[in-house]
Amino acid sequence: MEKRVVIGELASPEYMRRVKDEAQPILIPIGALEQHGPHMSMNPDVLLPGAVAVAVAQQIGALVAPAIAYGYKSQQKSGGGNHLCGTTSLDGHTLSSTVKDILKEFARHGARKICLINGHFENSMFVVEGIDLAIRELRWEGIHDFQVVMLSYWDFVNEDTIARIYPEGFPGWAVEHGGVLETSLMLHLHPHLVDMSCVPTHAAASFPPYDVFPAIPEWTPASGCLSSAAAASAEKGALLFDVCVQGISRALSEAYDARVNASRD
Amino acid sequence: MEKRVVIGELASPEYMRRVKDEAQPILIPIGALEQHGPHMSMNPDVLLPGAVAVAVAQQIGALVAPAIAYGYKSQQKSGGGNHLCGTTSLDGHTLSSTVKDILKEFARHGARKICLINGHFENSMFVVEGIDLAIRELRWEGIHDFQVVMLSYWDFVNEDTIARIYPEGFPGWAVEHGGVLETSLMLHLHPHLVDMSCVPTHAAASFPPYDVFPAIPEWTPASGCLSSAAAASAEKGALLFDVCVQGISRALSEAYDARVNASRD
Amino acid sequence: MEKRVVIGELASPEYMRRVKDEAQPILIPIGALEQHGPHMSMNPDVLLPGAVAVAVAQQIGALVAPAIAYGYKSQQKSGGGNHLCGTTSLDGHTLSSTVKDILKEFARHGARKICLINGHFENSMFVVEGIDLAIRELRWEGIHDFQVVMLSYWDFVNEDTIARIYPEGFPGWAVEHGGVLETSLMLHLHPHLVDMSCVPTHAAASFPPYDVFPAIPEWTPASGCLSSAAAASAEKGALLFDVCVQGISRALSEAYDARVNASRD
Amino acid sequence: MEKRVVIGELASPEYMRRVKDEAQPILIPIGALEQHGPHMSMNPDVLLPGAVAVAVAQQIGALVAPAIAYGYKSQQKSGGGNHLCGTTSLDGHTLSSTVKDILKEFARHGARKICLINGHFENSMFVVEGIDLAIRELRWEGIHDFQVVMLSYWDFVNEDTIARIYPEGFPGWAVEHGGVLETSLMLHLHPHLVDMSCVPTHAAASFPPYDVFPAIPEWTPASGCLSSAAAASAEKGALLFDVCVQGISRALSEAYDARVNASRD
Amino acid sequence: MEKRVVIGELASPEYMRRVKDEAQPILIPIGALEQHGPHMSMNPDVLLPGAVAVAVAQQIGALVAPAIAYGYKSQQKSGGGNHLCGTTSLDGHTLSSTVKDILKEFARHGARKICLINGHFENSMFVVEGIDLAIRELRWEGIHDFQVVMLSYWDFVNEDTIARIYPEGFPGWAVEHGGVLETSLMLHLHPHLVDMSCVPTHAAASFPPYDVFPAIPEWTPASGCLSSAAAASAEKGALLFDVCVQGISRALSEAYDARVNASRD
Amino acid sequence: MEKRVVIGELASPEYMRRVKDEAQPILIPIGALEQHGPHMSMNPDVLLPGAVAVAVAQQIGALVAPAIAYGYKSQQKSGGGNHLCGTTSLDGHTLSSTVKDILKEFARHGARKICLINGHFENSMFVVEGIDLAIRELRWEGIHDFQVVMLSYWDFVNEDTIARIYPEGFPGWAVEHGGVLETSLMLHLHPHLVDMSCVPTHAAASFPPYDVFPAIPEWTPASGCLSSAAAASAEKGALLFDVCVQGISRALSEAYDARVNASRD
Repeated sequence: MEKRVVIGELASPEYMRRVKDEAQPILIPIGALEQHGPHMSMNPDVLLPGAVAVAVAQQIGALVAPAIAYGYKSQQKSGGGNHLCGTTSLDGHTLSSTVKDILKEFARHGARKICLINGHFENSMFVVEGIDLAIRELRWEGIHDFQVVMLSYWDFVNEDTIARIYPEGFPGWAVEHGGVLETSLMLHLHPHLVDMSCVPTHAAASFPPYDVFPAIPEWTPASGCLSSAAAASAEKGALLFDVCVQGISRALSEAYDARVNASRD
Repeated sequence: MEKRVVIGELASPEYMRRVKDEAQPILIPIGALEQHGPHMSMNPDVLLPGAVAVAVAQQIGALVAPAIAYGYKSQQKSGGGNHLCGTTSLDGHTLSSTVKDILKEFARHGARKICLINGHFENSMFVVEGIDLAIRELRWEGIHDFQVVMLSYWDFVNEDTIARIYPEGFPGWAVEHGGVLETSLMLHLHPHLVDMSCVPTHAAASFPPYDVFPAIPEWTPASGCLSSAAAASAEKGALLFDVCVQGISRALSEAYDARVNASRD
Repeated sequence: MEKRVVIGELASPEYMRRVKDEAQPILIPIGALEQHGPHMSMNPDVLLPGAVAVAVAQQIGALVAPAIAYGYKSQQKSGGGNHLCGTTSLDGHTLSSTVKDILKEFARHGARKICLINGHFENSMFVVEGIDLAIRELRWEGIHDFQVVMLSYWDFVNEDTIARIYPEGFPGWAVEHGGVLETSLMLHLHPHLVDMSCVPTHAAASFPPYDVFPAIPEWTPASGCLSSAAAASAEKGALLFDVCVQGISRALSEAYDARVNASRD
Repeated sequence: MEKRVVIGELASPEYMRRVKDEAQPILIPIGALEQHGPHMSMNPDVLLPGAVAVAVAQQIGALVAPAIAYGYKSQQKSGGGNHLCGTTSLDGHTLSSTVKDILKEFARHGARKICLINGHFENSMFVVEGIDLAIRELRWEGIHDFQVVMLSYWDFVNEDTIARIYPEGFPGWAVEHGGVLETSLMLHLHPHLVDMSCVPTHAAASFPPYDVFPAIPEWTPASGCLSSAAAASAEKGALLFDVCVQGISRALSEAYDARVNASRD
Repeated sequence: MEKRVVIGELASPEYMRRVKDEAQPILIPIGALEQHGPHMSMNPDVLLPGAVAVAVAQQIGALVAPAIAYGYKSQQKSGGGNHLCGTTSLDGHTLSSTVKDILKEFARHGARKICLINGHFENSMFVVEGIDLAIRELRWEGIHDFQVVMLSYWDFVNEDTIARIYPEGFPGWAVEHGGVLETSLMLHLHPHLVDMSCVPTHAAASFPPYDVFPAIPEWTPASGCLSSAAAASAEKGALLFDVCVQGISRALSEAYDARVNASRD
Repeated sequence: MEKRVVIGELASPEYMRRVKDEAQPILIPIGALEQHGPHMSMNPDVLLPGAVAVAVAQQIGALVAPAIAYGYKSQQKSGGGNHLCGTTSLDGHTLSSTVKDILKEFARHGARKICLINGHFENSMFVVEGIDLAIRELRWEGIHDFQVVMLSYWDFVNEDTIARIYPEGFPGWAVEHGGVLETSLMLHLHPHLVDMSCVPTHAAASFPPYDVFPAIPEWTPASGCLSSAAAASAEKGALLFDVCVQGISRALSEAYDARVNASRD
């Protein structure tokens, strides 16, 4: 029987035992509520890192915190743009503050190893800022051994897998919004939230090497997707999920040992 | 068959139709990650308003936004205190900013009727501030018909129900932390997250008419609960749930019409 | 002859002696500028806790800081609402920052025992946040023995007194805005600021178990009061004042000893 | 009989009449809690502009708001420095936010003419910022005729008066901290808060043309005063008070007409 | 003779004429003070976009604002990390606020076309946030035609050029910190700030697909560079400079017309 | 040959050597982009303190940081007002945050002696606040020996020099905006940025002893200057420059020793 890993589902004495006595890492999924085209629900950016987090936690003995469900503003060249209906975003400072506050609380509980698992491209730098601010304030609290890993799950899809998923050529993560990666993963994990009969079939969007604000609505395909997910499948999703979970599981052991090893050299 | 009401599970065209064409209200559950004693998981403050929101939405034709899963700092006299392990809270300004940002986004989508359904006592005033700031900025955007209802679900438990739930006398909502109300609702909705064999049986906590900071740990019962949930049951939970869902459903129709009626008088 | 207790009226050497050598507590009244109906001035929320603070300070040997004269936004169900003319409020973050800054300054002077005496219902949570932020930053300064009591003076009106003040039944503090409590205290302390010939006589306001924003002006009685102060009298004011002053005086000795006692057990 | 001018002492209907119907200006005293040497209380920076405000209001038909009682950090070359015991200051952003919030509330009530009467040198620029931020947000509210005068009362002491007050030479406002000006005014208005037997008699402090942070305590005279108030007298105070009140009264009529006149040219 | 394009060097009447009458775009270089290895000064991130901006401005008839000289925190995988000596960075919110404030001021002057030319990888998202906040507040001012282009100059180095600059294979912009691109451009524009005798010759750094905070110092090559600039030359710099200037000049005309064209379709 | 003093032009190993091994002070010029009349460019407030900083650094062995090029809002009585075209200013909090962030970074590098050299009158108090916030946070980092000097270069123009520069009487620094001081210094240092054929010749502006917001445009001379620079000359500029550089050089040695000496007494 699998052990519970979701923090919210634990009673506090059990949580305390895992965090303080077992020194388990805490994984925090961070996503967004964002339109993902006519064929898919608006929650993949939070469901996918959440599912990855649970699988990784079960594998390595970690805990999963409640997901941060609202993210930073969608950018036109990576998510269609924040002018689109359904996309529901936070100001950068709000997101950074949320990350900072939560990290400091977990540190107060005794946690010293955290991993933020990101599912929304635009979040990264504001999460980085939140981590930096938390570590700064924890230093002021006298805590100097708090270590945070920050990753986006798709960065663990290696070249072999890319070749298998995109046999006709990889368009780049840049236009992977509502595309093959996300749709396949959703077909694998939450098939009832995908309707392949509505999948857009237009060519991948192409953008100039600059951004314009306010966004120029005509630049985003009317579907809201930046490439077609027509080639998505649950099988590809299973493969992708496995690659990410295995990759992240390995990475975390490495990462938390890295400083120790480095200073040992 | 029931219609989907959870925003994250809708594709954006369907969401747009419901928000713009049908002018459906959006319900936002807001809770906390907070210790609730040895017999219960740490997520009732978010699961309970979430379940209420879904039931209300199905009844009145509304949508449910992703819950705000982290809340304001637990206070000793209402939640045991924020020094306790497991309780994971935001600074007040972070919470108000989150509420503000999200409300403005839903307004941008075209929503004009929002309801925040609170499940964590300490959130209220910071949610109020977030609402006030959002309405102010929406005025600056030229939006003057945005209406927000803010409620805590337990305020809909009427006196009759209280008499039935607490036949030996109602200790007051003040000490209802991890007590009969929350535990019964969890037994009704998520029985696997309650372990009645661990339920504390101590007397209700009593506090002086002031607060002390930092909290004095000895004032909080060692269980982390402020009263005993020994009298909790799934049946009471079903009754409470029904009372809240019916009460809130009725309240929302009234509330959104109130201004219209008022100005008509 | 009575000793001066108001900090602003002391020369700094005398203040320093009292704070550092005698370790006197500092009491900070916190109120609001808020309409209180046609029969009363707009300053009771700051005058009343100010008078209580002075009386308590003289009794227990404490100091009284300048009052924080502007408070958080009036809520419709407890103060009539912030849309009313005359009510002059701060954003929540401004109020919390003010409390934080002042507490840190008193700590720098050497004070270790503070009491915030609140006279405006809506202030509480933002004062709590300011206290929490101050204590956090003081930890970073290496100060770990700073203790703050937070109270609202009316919470010291005990049941016996309530029975004497409201012989025909207590409507609850919720609607005690510009009502018998405040008006009686003002008649006792500042009779020239009350004009009983203008006192409203309408029934106590009643509200649904939720809040609506923006406020629905018609919900607030036209007088701006939430209940009638027709039964107010200077005698009741004298009784209330005495009960509050004695209760708070006793509470403060208890409170500042509580941690010591707790850790001694 | 003199009319009441203090806003806090008015019932809201009277306040509304004065602000909306009579369009009376609102004067806001802004001061500090700051050590002022061994011979004087710590509240002159708030009492003096408060008294000036009341006298001006009675003369020109204006209202006086509750004073902002805590100010910006004392600087070594103008107030002895913020390291001194008793001096109790706000961060700059807190002060600016307070000013902003209050101004916006008075504008909401209908006030269009405000005057901030400053009694603490170091406040000026943060008050200016608060005014600028308020005017900006009021523009967003659609209010374009809100006019604010900002002044420090001592800037109305003209050269003739200076010659009479300082017959042996004017040391400059820079070292007028706890000196002849403030002490004379306090002797005139609040003689029980001055003890001339403790007045320092040292020479005026002199400082280099730069500031050093943290302050170098030895640069501030041990008394905390920057010059001697030995030559202060109640008579000088009466003269100074009269000059300030008359000057400010004249200035305000001019100021509020200035834009009108300017645009008429 | 070339026309002056640097705003700071213009007298205000000339600036006003260019901004208001000629509607010239304003280009704002944004960089950082950051270590760039032992062979190069710490200012390339601000000098390079500054030089590009001037050349573009002369070509298309635009103005160049003072550079924002301090940027966001260096990240280990793109700039070596912010723990390194010499790297001098702002918090994210400070940078976003700076961008916001400046954009709003240029809008007040009458400018409607802005381009931020970025020279420091880590700045991008905080600049994006500053732009978004400025456009929001400008809407509140009633300004709806303000258009901002945001670009990083290296994104205009096309594939042909990459092939010529990196004949032995392009390591990716990710490790182009203190590498061939920046060093060649500096050799072309500011040769006295490069000392090729100190150029590191180590292999390109390689990093795992995640970030760790605090940075693990051993992951960054001791030189502070992420790849070797041994193959840099002034000739390559001239080519790169020309490609960027031409590309950006073309892009700007397109970009400012894009909305017009889009809405015309 | 002169040693490089500009931090941006040093490679990081050299910078580290100077800051850590030689403990050189860091001088930070801080200015503004502000209209300075029809005869002069808009950058004197940043160029002048920048030139002073370089000369002082060469004389005393210090380093010069990149200038803070945007400053606080121009005030009508000292800079013509922030409503003028070309003047480009930051909010007060943005400026204070910038100063805070930069100071903390230099402290991280090992610097312990900083001097902010101001060239824009209105910056002072916000720089002071930034310094105070930085020192506070550095204390939390455990750094207690960080010392900051803050000065405005014109405060080093002594009375003798004033008599030589203004033989017909000194109008006061208050109206020295675009006047003889700044224009002479620019003629000495950057003659190509001054066009004396356009110099205004009107009388010095005079203002009442109060400020009005929004500014009354008619109060500022149409030229944007507050006095005439007709009497400016490169010779006067050379004299002024020399007096400032010598005065500041002397002041800095004194200042950094002051605490040591003080505590030795």
